[in-house]
Amino acid sequence: MHEGGFPVVLGHEAAGFVESVGPGVTEFQPGDKVLPLPLSQCEKCRFCVSPKTNQCEKGWSVGRLHEMSPSESRFTCKGKKVLQFAGTSTFSEYTVVNQMAVAKIDPAAPLDKVCLLGCGVCTGYGAAVNTAKVEPGSTCAVFGLGAVGLAAVMGCKAAGAKRIFAVDINPDKFEKAKVFGATDFVNPKDHSKPVSEVLSEMTNGGVDFSLECVGNVAVMRSALESCVRGWGVSVLVGWTDMADVATRPIQLLSGRTWKGSLLGGFKVKRDVPQLVKAYLDKKIMLDEFITHTMTLDQVNDAIELMKQGKCIRTVMTVSSQ
Amino acid sequence: MHEGGFPVVLGHEAAGFVESVGPGVTEFQPGDKVLPLPLSQCEKCRFCVSPKTNQCEKGWSVGRLHEMSPSESRFTCKGKKVLQFAGTSTFSEYTVVNQMAVAKIDPAAPLDKVCLLGCGVCTGYGAAVNTAKVEPGSTCAVFGLGAVGLAAVMGCKAAGAKRIFAVDINPDKFEKAKVFGATDFVNPKDHSKPVSEVLSEMTNGGVDFSLECVGNVAVMRSALESCVRGWGVSVLVGWTDMADVATRPIQLLSGRTWKGSLLGGFKVKRDVPQLVKAYLDKKIMLDEFITHTMTLDQVNDAIELMKQGKCIRTVMTVSSQ
Repeated sequence: MHEGGFPVVLGHEAAGFVESVGPGVTEFQPGDKVLPLPLSQCEKCRFCVSPKTNQCEKGWSVGRLHEMSPSESRFTCKGKKVLQFAGTSTFSEYTVVNQMAVAKIDPAAPLDKVCLLGCGVCTGYGAAVNTAKVEPGSTCAVFGLGAVGLAAVMGCKAAGAKRIFAVDINPDKFEKAKVFGATDFVNPKDHSKPVSEVLSEMTNGGVDFSLECVGNVAVMRSALESCVRGWGVSVLVGWTDMADVATRPIQLLSGRTWKGSLLGGFKVKRDVPQLVKAYLDKKIMLDEFITHTMTLDQVNDAIELMKQGKCIRTVMTVSSQ
Repeated sequence: MHEGGFPVVLGHEAAGFVESVGPGVTEFQPGDKVLPLPLSQCEKCRFCVSPKTNQCEKGWSVGRLHEMSPSESRFTCKGKKVLQFAGTSTFSEYTVVNQMAVAKIDPAAPLDKVCLLGCGVCTGYGAAVNTAKVEPGSTCAVFGLGAVGLAAVMGCKAAGAKRIFAVDINPDKFEKAKVFGATDFVNPKDHSKPVSEVLSEMTNGGVDFSLECVGNVAVMRSALESCVRGWGVSVLVGWTDMADVATRPIQLLSGRTWKGSLLGGFKVKRDVPQLVKAYLDKKIMLDEFITHTMTLDQVNDAIELMKQGKCIRTVMTVSSQ
């Protein structure tokens, strides 16, 4: 994902305080609680003024290399440039971000919880409620039960889904998926036939909505083909840029819809603060995603836990609040 | 497309009269003007009762092999079974069709014109108005300017599109596309870069809606990638089952939607008669698609014209009205 190369300060999905602001920035003041985000909202471009999308013409994510991108890093180490990542670079005590990509949040918000709204939870939750537009009484399937997938399960439940199939090759994730609202659990490894056929048989023809929360093109295909023809909607949520995603044309011709979103379709300045508020009002869960807390020097241990499928989210403390 | 093999009576997209009805058929009487259709509408299944789709659980097209499918042909020749095609087999003076797949139409309708509503014109027109849901003021691109593509152009115009790009490697089709409402014309062979890049440059980032009316997986990909990120919608209209259709996941993740339909999403009994009426009321064009008329014994000449790109629709007279 990081095209800029190395050395780089990695990290996104964080929360913090504004330490200082650059010239012309009037929306923020030192001390504001904020989430730095991997998308921007300039509030002026044709995307920002459209209700259809949370894309923005500016920001690092669309190749605007002058908006705090890898090529314009504010980090140096011993006089040598160190690149930024995802417009955020939050594995750091201090970072410099573009004000277009920062959401000011409720001062009462606990940073060590709402940091999850800096990417993953918005991404999964919004994919269900904004992109798929899951309907009351519908049947859904979520592929991949990391934080993004669990947030998608939470979104399906919030939207009123009747049945939510949680699909993962790691059955240890099923218990947690139940907490977020999953009603049925499928481990593709338990079946000799493709999981799309398994789901089709369990649902009389396929689910109404499916969400791929892995970032694997074979799973993306399975998720699409698990949908019912006629009106099934499948959403790409997981990120990958290593291969093409493919299907047979008849899968779409027969009435399925394939779509995708980034950050769950939430506009960063307008919507993310509302999600923080929803958490404070106990309308969405965040604590339940957090299985571990560590300090930044333990980052490699955290990544190892993730590789082994033994965590959902490990919150890294970079500095004391 | 025809899985049943040979010998077979080919042909669909026709109009005719009811000659006789089988037991239990009350909706039709001898003498009724009808269109036999490649989709069914049983009016009872969960698809038929849903406003979201024109799919039906019955009919040959979903593998219900007892509904006038290849394996249950009513044709014989010298005592040997001859297969049916697409539930219709209209290269024949008489055929037997399931009443679920027949639309009764206005007695005033000229059969040699409204036959085009038996497949192609519905397919293209509906793909624009029902599936893509083209919006007033939008920018569209139609790939492939046969009858289906021209009908898609007509649909885009009817829906209020401001600009309609007609894309074909045969520039002889552009004049006709203009008749149906195309405003801009692109021959991919005139450009050294991919047509998706050409369209993106001509439209400041891509079209709002694109429709693939060829049945070629490379063109399907181009059509998707010609759409603007954020909200672009691309519809598969052309049929092929020879290869997978593919794209990079980011094309969808960045907000494009990929969908498809059969027969333009029109329910065959409810909607097709309305389209016949729209033609009689001069609200949609049909005559303009017809470049040739022939008799059935000239069918190979008609197919040759099509292969050479020298016709739009050749109407074959099977018997005098």
